[in-house]
Amino acid sequence: MYHDYTPADEIAKRLQALRAAVAAQKWDAALIVQDVDLFYFSGTMQNALLFCPPTGNAIMMVKKYQERAQRESAVEHVIPFSSWTELPTLITKHHGAMPKIIGVELDVLPTKDYLRLQRIFNDVTIADSAPAIQQIRRIKSAYEIDLMKKAGEIGKMVYAEVPQVLREGMTEIELAGIMVAEAMRHGHQNYLRMRAFNSYAFSWHVLSGPAGGELSFIDAPMGGIGLSPSFPVGASQKKIALHEPILIDFGICYQGYQIDETRMFCLRNVPREFKAAYEAACRIEAAITAGARPGASCRKLYETGWETARALGYEESFMGPPGYKTRFIGHGIGLEIGELPFIAEGHDYPLEQGMTFAVEPKMVFPGKGAVGIENTFAVTKDGVEKLTPADEQLIEV
Amino acid sequence: MYHDYTPADEIAKRLQALRAAVAAQKWDAALIVQDVDLFYFSGTMQNALLFCPPTGNAIMMVKKYQERAQRESAVEHVIPFSSWTELPTLITKHHGAMPKIIGVELDVLPTKDYLRLQRIFNDVTIADSAPAIQQIRRIKSAYEIDLMKKAGEIGKMVYAEVPQVLREGMTEIELAGIMVAEAMRHGHQNYLRMRAFNSYAFSWHVLSGPAGGELSFIDAPMGGIGLSPSFPVGASQKKIALHEPILIDFGICYQGYQIDETRMFCLRNVPREFKAAYEAACRIEAAITAGARPGASCRKLYETGWETARALGYEESFMGPPGYKTRFIGHGIGLEIGELPFIAEGHDYPLEQGMTFAVEPKMVFPGKGAVGIENTFAVTKDGVEKLTPADEQLIEV
Repeated sequence: MYHDYTPADEIAKRLQALRAAVAAQKWDAALIVQDVDLFYFSGTMQNALLFCPPTGNAIMMVKKYQERAQRESAVEHVIPFSSWTELPTLITKHHGAMPKIIGVELDVLPTKDYLRLQRIFNDVTIADSAPAIQQIRRIKSAYEIDLMKKAGEIGKMVYAEVPQVLREGMTEIELAGIMVAEAMRHGHQNYLRMRAFNSYAFSWHVLSGPAGGELSFIDAPMGGIGLSPSFPVGASQKKIALHEPILIDFGICYQGYQIDETRMFCLRNVPREFKAAYEAACRIEAAITAGARPGASCRKLYETGWETARALGYEESFMGPPGYKTRFIGHGIGLEIGELPFIAEGHDYPLEQGMTFAVEPKMVFPGKGAVGIENTFAVTKDGVEKLTPADEQLIEV
Repeated sequence: MYHDYTPADEIAKRLQALRAAVAAQKWDAALIVQDVDLFYFSGTMQNALLFCPPTGNAIMMVKKYQERAQRESAVEHVIPFSSWTELPTLITKHHGAMPKIIGVELDVLPTKDYLRLQRIFNDVTIADSAPAIQQIRRIKSAYEIDLMKKAGEIGKMVYAEVPQVLREGMTEIELAGIMVAEAMRHGHQNYLRMRAFNSYAFSWHVLSGPAGGELSFIDAPMGGIGLSPSFPVGASQKKIALHEPILIDFGICYQGYQIDETRMFCLRNVPREFKAAYEAACRIEAAITAGARPGASCRKLYETGWETARALGYEESFMGPPGYKTRFIGHGIGLEIGELPFIAEGHDYPLEQGMTFAVEPKMVFPGKGAVGIENTFAVTKDGVEKLTPADEQLIEV
């Protein structure tokens, strides 16, 4: 056995939450169409659809590969299907009646498939289930947090490798590749997931000196040069030089669960301004996490971060240069990047026990570099627990 | 300068083809919304939309990061914008009138964004531009094929590393990681692109012995164990043993352009049945490529592959076990996997000069392993040219 299966009691609890959401929305069913949601609610990521009414058994319809879906999933009612056109027949046969209103994840379903589903379902109303699913998935179980801790342990080993291999003149992408190889050896899946059109998550943000000051399309304080205009973010063919701040934002994914983490390195001694900025970033993180506990407002934690940055004199560089600042300092993370909660402007809801999120105070100095720290936390009964134990020293090699 | 910019004459030709398609479809404009299509038609992958009427200048509206989009792109008319709600105002101002029919890539646009666009555009008809764009992108220029050749050169170096590092007891994922690191060092972007909902492309299909016989959701002859049910394909924590056939299907992406390639390895001597199957796979590839030239029917090349497989006695294992065979032997490749042409059932159109495609005859033996070869080819004036020069010996280490 090379990995875990999601335990049956986890799946049972998640499906119960989905049923409750379907009932609360007054839908007749939810149809789970996206692979990550399918994995969350069923334990498998085979090619399948999950039909979930407000009461009774959920029905998983598997296109390929049925034997594996059954082995991996605790969903009891599993049937084969070969085409979406069979859906009305299968639903009528196994559920009893066609739903009048059905919830589907419209934030990710391609339009072409939506229009096809409309034709097949004829006069069924298709509602957007994404907000309800986002709410269910915002609270992580102990099982989920444990997988994120294992990802954090891998991160610790990967960052520990950096001082061993970092040397003058190596390219950012070469260092990134060595880190990727080390992470994969420990079980990192080398494919991060982000729920956003035209964006993607990846581990190898290795940004040295001026590369850290390069902005790009990505909704992050810094972008990086990247390998080409077709991947204009992260590590590049730029050679790493002495005395440059080297920001490494390296996410890890273990058995589907992700953590986000940033550490700083430098060849020889780091110039004083970057060291001071790094200390400020750590203080901003500390100010946010000191207030982070169940009931704390995410908006207020965001404001705390900004107040601390201003008090320390980093208003201009904090979270990006003027005009290009991100509207968040932290973001939820789990199976996907961009889950709830957001430590952000306008996110006026409380933290809750079991939420998991990354905090990433960063300063960007165009033409010079980027500096910052990032850790992933789980909200506990009365505070937060750090899931990312890698050494937090700014390491001078 | 760490990479190329797409030359202005390339962009001019591509935009001319898009204008012609808009005119042929009798649309008033195309609105390019997807990042890969945007890169193809503009040269940048910043956060932007490209509005292209049938005549006159295309207009690129950039959300972030304008300065970089302008540096990277040869599109002349570039304006800033901050929200989709501004589109009617911007289009009216810069184009003169709102279109009545507009083509948008509905195969990839999320439904939520489609519904939003419908509200913003009010009584504009939104047509699916994906088929027209697929047709434009099917023929690669010399510039594009040259980038694919560079990807092929990286692949050659990566496969040459395998006999140097392969040893008994290492895990599939460890070997995969070493190959990823070597590829990245040479400029591989470690993020492949596939135009398909709920699917993804990745390089590290390292499948040893029985792992090669494991099926999964993926539309490929073999799946692999993968790292967990949340990534149930490719390399796993399984240890590589002596005398197992090791199939390595490792795609490379250089400056956005991808090649697909499969080679075979074995620790010590490979059992005779796998060696024979590999020789058969090579003969099937040769039979297909011998007939591949402008004008050749893709369906007939597919049938040639199957006829050769049957004649060699591999009907049962070819392209997957019975009941789970793929309906293709080859697929187009370029900026994305799954471009035209497909060497497949029902694909009754001719090859054309400038098409690029991978051919991947593979045999799957459940419980024992997978065997096969894959190369990427460009269609020339009178045949095909191989873009993947890695050694084709089944290498016994």
